[in-house]
Parts: sequence; structure tokens; C-alpha cells
Amino acid sequence: MSGWVVIAGLGPGNEDMVTPEVRATLDQATDVVGYFPYVARVAPRDGLTLHGSDNRVELDRSRHALSMAAEGRRVVVVSSGDPGVFAMASAVFEALEAGPEAWRALEIRVLPGITAMLAAAAAAGAPLGHDFCTINLSDNLKPWALIEKRLRLAAEADFAMAFYNPRSRSRPEGFERALKVLREACGDARPILFARNVSRVDQTLRIVPLTEATPEMADMRTMVIVGSSATRIIETPRGPILFTPRSA
Amino acid sequence: MSGWVVIAGLGPGNEDMVTPEVRATLDQATDVVGYFPYVARVAPRDGLTLHGSDNRVELDRSRHALSMAAEGRRVVVVSSGDPGVFAMASAVFEALEAGPEAWRALEIRVLPGITAMLAAAAAAGAPLGHDFCTINLSDNLKPWALIEKRLRLAAEADFAMAFYNPRSRSRPEGFERALKVLREACGDARPILFARNVSRVDQTLRIVPLTEATPEMADMRTMVIVGSSATRIIETPRGPILFTPRSA
Repeated sequence: MSGWVVIAGLGPGNEDMVTPEVRATLDQATDVVGYFPYVARVAPRDGLTLHGSDNRVELDRSRHALSMAAEGRRVVVVSSGDPGVFAMASAVFEALEAGPEAWRALEIRVLPGITAMLAAAAAAGAPLGHDFCTINLSDNLKPWALIEKRLRLAAEADFAMAFYNPRSRSRPEGFERALKVLREACGDARPILFARNVSRVDQTLRIVPLTEATPEMADMRTMVIVGSSATRIIETPRGPILFTPRSA
Repeated sequence: MSGWVVIAGLGPGNEDMVTPEVRATLDQATDVVGYFPYVARVAPRDGLTLHGSDNRVELDRSRHALSMAAEGRRVVVVSSGDPGVFAMASAVFEALEAGPEAWRALEIRVLPGITAMLAAAAAAGAPLGHDFCTINLSDNLKPWALIEKRLRLAAEADFAMAFYNPRSRSRPEGFERALKVLREACGDARPILFARNVSRVDQTLRIVPLTEATPEMADMRTMVIVGSSATRIIETPRGPILFTPRSA
């Protein structure tokens, strides 16, 4: 039997957001590889080996997945959200590029999932309803200067902005700097959304003017979305709705 | 019984990409509203009225949905892809904002879906694996000058770029201008992906250097993704894999 690797997105956390395509592929797998909490979302069964690993070992995990597939195993690499957005798909392809030539003959597929920014936007209204950009605020793999440059240009382009990995214990100061840059570059009180544990039962949404945002409003489980200059709020008895009109 | 409006994403076309959350909501609906080809994806059943309408009537359709919900009906507004990305969610909120105060008491929810750029990226590899922007190239609702400004700033920021609505019969020249701007602003032969009918049985993928891209490679059923300066191709016996590394 020939092996394969499928890099599959589990969505942001709500099991009802996992696509049938991803479920069916998990049912065919012999091995599931991924960061511990994502692997924990896959139900154990006979014939399936779960390989949870720590974060920051994405390349090791990718090589493991590819080498198992080369041995004929059917391997699903699980990501939260969508595997193509700051997740495992790029890591697997980096490992493929640097690995043995024989790996290139493997069947490798990516199955999309609901990425956190889309779930966060949906929960709050439609803040990404017009042109936007998506930035990973972690400076683990790129210099801070590049992040700051992108923030300034995105503000000049008047994009709405979605931020992944805004803040972690190892990088507590980065998000504070990002907020400072955004306040300077945007120069107004446009709304900013902090969506924590999106789609889960303990989801929280908080919308404040950019001028009132503070670093501790975000952590690694928070998706942050800053509106464009056109993004508005509709106040309703059920809470505020944040949206960007189609003409923005 | 109290009515509601749910704006739901049907994903890019493959029925196995429709989330269980969206399916369950469709099962509860009394009315489904949307552009004809999207409404046609919902199976008829007793107790469900399908209201297909033409495109370019998004606000009329939104008012219709809200007014039916105000009468106690359970209305699903269907979008292709994700309703929050250049789709019906913003239109419904525009109609809500301009409509009768009573509408604001309605239960209105947005359910995310797999948006075309994520399905296209997954089919080709992982070209959106690092910072990127998402631009609607239609100038129906915004001036061309704003599109061109965003393209230039996005190139300066070295974002990968995903383009919706690249070209239509009524706007054949816009995409040609966009390609010209991109060639000037990027100044290299970075890869550009044309993904047509993404996730459907007749899906086609084409990757060419930006210098060789021509306007007729895109139509309204095509998702276009331009790489950042770091986006690369891995040649394999199964075809090229397009990806952007995590450090881009």
C-alpha cells in the first residue's frame, strides 16, 4: 500500500466547524502527527497511532510525517484552523524541499480548514468584509523591523488587519510595540477586536477603540482584528456588530 | 416563534467542505436567500422556500432576509466561500444599519466557510503560508486608484497577495492594469497562481512567472494568488508545489 501525507485543518476549536473532507481523511489515517492539543482533538481508535509533539518542533514533526509516509503509512498532519495560514503546511514543504529526493514522489495534499481570523470575524460581524491583510506578529522567524514595516504599509493601504500570535510569554513586549505603531500609523480611534478562544464554549469578544487597546488584552489564544478606516459598529440589544462595508 | 437570520458560507463548491454547523442550520431554515447558483446548492425539502436572486442585488436580498426574519421566519443567507470575505455578511449589516430600528433586535449570526483563497492555496501547496493580503479587484464599489494604491503598497510590504474577482466581462481591462502594476512593483519573476473552479471536479491550477501572466488566464471563476519574494516552487513528479516559507 502506498503511503501519503495529508496536512489537514481542524478549524478553530468547535468540532462542528471541521469539514467532512477532513473527518473522512482522519478515518483513513494510520498515523496522526501534530502539536499535543491538536492531536488530542482526534479520537483514538484501533489502527491509529497518535504522535503528539511540542510546539516549535515543526520541522522535526514534518520530517517524521514524510518518513512514515515513505514507509507506506497514511499520515495526517493536523493543524488548528487552516494548515496553510501560519501553520503546518509550509513547514512540511520546507522539510520536503530539504529532504531526500524520494519524498517528492509521495502523495501530499493540503485540506483547508476554517482559519481563526474567519471564525473571529464571523463571531463579531464582518470586519474582514473588504480588503484586508493577515500578519503573524511573532518575531520568532522574522525580524521585528519587517513586522513594523508591514504594519505601517498596511495602515497606509487602509487594509483591515488580522493578527495571529499577537503575544506570548516569551515575547511580551512585541504586541505593545505593535499597538504603538498602529496608533501612530492609523491616527484614529478605529475599532480593534480581541477574540479569545474563538468558536469554543469559553469564547470572549471585546471591541475597543484602538486608542484604548492595551497589550494585556491579547495572549496566544487571542485573534486580533483591527478595522480599516471604514470599519463601523452597529449597536444592538444583543451587543455590538463590527463590520466593514463592501465599498471600503 | 422568533425569527433569525444566519449568513452562512457554503465553501468553494465541494460539498465535503461545507461545515456540519452550516448543514445543521440549513436543516432548521424556513427560507434560503442568495445568488441563484448558491441557492441551487441547497436541497429542496418541504417547509423550505428557496429564494434565488441575481447578483448585484445584495442589498435588496439582505432587506428581504431581514424583513422575513422580522416576521418570524428562520432565514439562511447563503454565500459561496466564507460570507465575511467579499460576500453577503457585510451587505446584510449595511442593510441592517440603514433599516428599521426593530431589525436590530433580531438574532443575526454569521457562520464561517472555507473561502476560495484558502482552498486555492491548499490545492497548490501553501502560498499563503506567511503574511499576505486579500484584495477584491472589482472596481464596482471602489475607485480603481485605490486598488492600484493597495497593490503597490502590498508589493512594498512584500505580502503574498490573494485576489478575488480578478476579471469580468464588464471589466475586462482591470486585471490587465493590475498585472502591469504588479510587474512594475514586484520587479521579478515570482510565481502567480491561477486557480479556476477551485475544489470542483473541473478544477484547474496554473502557475506561471509573473512576467508571463496574461489577463485571459483569469475570469470570475478564477482565484489569483501572487507570491511574496520568498514564495518558491518544489518540482515533483506529481506537479509543482507552490509555497511560502514560515520565515518570509
